[in-house]
Amino acid sequence: MDIKDILLKPKSYDQSELTISGWVSYFRGNEKVCFVEINDGSTIKNLQVVFKGFDFKLLENLKPGSAAVIKGKILHTPGKSQEVEMQALELVDYKKADEDYPIQNKEIKLETLREIPHLRHRTKVLRAVMLIRSTLAQEIHKYFIDKNFYYMNSPIITSNDGEGAGETFEVYGSEIKHFFGKNNKATLGVTGQLHGESYAVGFKKIYTFAPTFRAENSNTKKHLAEFWMVEPEVAFANLYDMINLAQDLLKNVLEKTLEKNKFEFEFLSEFLNINLKERIELFTKSDLKIVDYRDAIKELEKHKDKFENKDIKFGLDLGTEHERYLVESIFKCPIALINFPKAFKAFYMHQNDDGNTVAAFDLLIPQVGELIGGSQREVRYEKLKQRINELNISEKDFKWYLDLRRFGDMGSSGFGLGFERLVVYATGIENIRDSIPYPRTVDNIKM
Amino acid sequence: MDIKDILLKPKSYDQSELTISGWVSYFRGNEKVCFVEINDGSTIKNLQVVFKGFDFKLLENLKPGSAAVIKGKILHTPGKSQEVEMQALELVDYKKADEDYPIQNKEIKLETLREIPHLRHRTKVLRAVMLIRSTLAQEIHKYFIDKNFYYMNSPIITSNDGEGAGETFEVYGSEIKHFFGKNNKATLGVTGQLHGESYAVGFKKIYTFAPTFRAENSNTKKHLAEFWMVEPEVAFANLYDMINLAQDLLKNVLEKTLEKNKFEFEFLSEFLNINLKERIELFTKSDLKIVDYRDAIKELEKHKDKFENKDIKFGLDLGTEHERYLVESIFKCPIALINFPKAFKAFYMHQNDDGNTVAAFDLLIPQVGELIGGSQREVRYEKLKQRINELNISEKDFKWYLDLRRFGDMGSSGFGLGFERLVVYATGIENIRDSIPYPRTVDNIKM
Repeated sequence: MDIKDILLKPKSYDQSELTISGWVSYFRGNEKVCFVEINDGSTIKNLQVVFKGFDFKLLENLKPGSAAVIKGKILHTPGKSQEVEMQALELVDYKKADEDYPIQNKEIKLETLREIPHLRHRTKVLRAVMLIRSTLAQEIHKYFIDKNFYYMNSPIITSNDGEGAGETFEVYGSEIKHFFGKNNKATLGVTGQLHGESYAVGFKKIYTFAPTFRAENSNTKKHLAEFWMVEPEVAFANLYDMINLAQDLLKNVLEKTLEKNKFEFEFLSEFLNINLKERIELFTKSDLKIVDYRDAIKELEKHKDKFENKDIKFGLDLGTEHERYLVESIFKCPIALINFPKAFKAFYMHQNDDGNTVAAFDLLIPQVGELIGGSQREVRYEKLKQRINELNISEKDFKWYLDLRRFGDMGSSGFGLGFERLVVYATGIENIRDSIPYPRTVDNIKM
Repeated sequence: MDIKDILLKPKSYDQSELTISGWVSYFRGNEKVCFVEINDGSTIKNLQVVFKGFDFKLLENLKPGSAAVIKGKILHTPGKSQEVEMQALELVDYKKADEDYPIQNKEIKLETLREIPHLRHRTKVLRAVMLIRSTLAQEIHKYFIDKNFYYMNSPIITSNDGEGAGETFEVYGSEIKHFFGKNNKATLGVTGQLHGESYAVGFKKIYTFAPTFRAENSNTKKHLAEFWMVEPEVAFANLYDMINLAQDLLKNVLEKTLEKNKFEFEFLSEFLNINLKERIELFTKSDLKIVDYRDAIKELEKHKDKFENKDIKFGLDLGTEHERYLVESIFKCPIALINFPKAFKAFYMHQNDDGNTVAAFDLLIPQVGELIGGSQREVRYEKLKQRINELNISEKDFKWYLDLRRFGDMGSSGFGLGFERLVVYATGIENIRDSIPYPRTVDNIKM
């Protein structure tokens, strides 16, 4: 029996005798009556259990953090401040938390909580964030399952380095150092896309949802060394199909998550003083706008005094300040920015006829900036090969990838959604380290 | 429009004009009429498209492997050998595969196909296996979503080594070698369980589904260096609850996969000459038997001449030969073997009162042997600490894990399901390297 069920449907449980199990979040009372709030992780809300006529010495064991199994009767009390409560019949079992249990009924800084990732989800704020995280992930799977997408498991350890740039992690066996062969480099994948593309040719619509890794030395609120990515790839699809898919995915997933985690969103909105419902409805109730990179540059030029980097011209790799300004101040809605200069984009993107830009899109959202990056892939063998050579990427390493184009590849498009960025956006939490159970960053690998 | 839909409901598509896209698996014909079989990855079955009155020179481009977009009319033809076909109206677009496309209409050895993991899923056999793989994974997620399990993402890079034994992979930054700090070891997780346990205390029922890694030097049909694991962990649950969960999960997931991948199971049963339906119904239509390790030893002793390792006595870590014999010859059904000698089991398992055994179970199945391993966790702080010291595991490294027991942990139980082993079992494929898109083994890291 989940406490969430009881809280959502108090009427239908009225007078039922049930056994619940969970952890004490709050205890008060005296010899006559004790009120014990129990949380079982199904929601951030607690169920209040009223103990009357129990041995007070026994009940004093139920301090915050303690586990308890309680048999009782549910009372639906619509008039009272608590719409539902449990009248305890029996304390079936319990396990006392030691006195130094760090999550007590006082506010602890998020920074301090990062020191105890094995316990911090038992605070209200982290519990709310982590519940929403799980729902978002599950709704993403459900979305793709409903649309008959193939769930692709790209390899994690790879001899290909996806973007052809950026810092990667290297992998060695503890006993056999060059486990995968003397002449084979082995790194942790920065993307599942390239392998994903090989499965899009054949399964047509696929997605990955897996951990990815970057060994970048950035100690910011926005970067993790280990993070989860969702990467759909669809054959026979172009850039605009992908923008539509990204929008439909986000609308669907955010709407369902908002529905399922009502209590968590209410709490976080109040706690962080952000209207999360409004923030999310910016997606679910409106359409995103497609903006050409050149037009965005023109708009940004008009406001160049607003930015730290004022060098606004074709060729600029937009920073978060520019991205947020576009979304929050100019267009006032999520936008898909398209047709970027090829110079700072990856080698595999479709080269537009103008010779300067590629058929890529960045989905920009308020607060966060880039949430999704995607592109139509370059399907023309010669063009792709030329770009690989221009960028001094090893053609030999990517022979298999080039070969996809020779064997019935009519073009595919895809995008990557940084899952933790979605969690940050949906929950309003500021630091990405609070969006994942055990964050990994430079110099930081707790447990 | 997925071809699978058309094939499953031919009547409802009769006379419809549709556009399909996919890849040519078979081409035959002449100037008058051509038959082109199209596969779009939604199922292993093809849709036959009949071209009449088309330019033969044009159609000759539609050789196996080529991509095509075709507009046509669906004809439901119940009398014919093909129950449904498409009459081509227009070849909207196509992309020819080069002549050296390796998947032609002749049988290729699975071993040879392993050299081309980016293309092998376009053979019938690998396509069938990989389709079943995806369905199994998605049904596992759906099962846990339906039961309100929390989806936990344990870290992949970890400073804790889960089993306290076994070869691991070490992780270094390419630029900053000791990326996570000079004094921190960083390895790829062999399990998500320990971190999962920390979330079971608080969220009560959680599961992980993620890649795990072992740097073992075993070049066998059964081992991968990178494989996916499903690891549920439930607080307030004991060993028997977990055996029931394992059974219910497998029944549910296998049943639904059998239903969804009808064509794939039919094909593989014929191709591999195995009755896969019967194999799967061994789970779905019967209950597994719980057998005590001591009783299993007694049974095996009676048949010791059957085994390579004849040293059958209490303390033996059963080999696959023993496991399979128990399941296939003695009990003739899947079994949960329980209460193993603690000597060869992990430190975190509940120590039984006899002082010699732990509350662990292995779920053994025909052909494969061990599919699932699980246990009730040792919740008693002192007992756990003692065992950690006995085994010379660093108590300091596991302080956080020990601390869980001090803060309201009333005990939890969980298991690990090796996902690729399930794929091997369900599909009948013999070598585990054919159960995952890009297998990683010693000296082998293609792409």
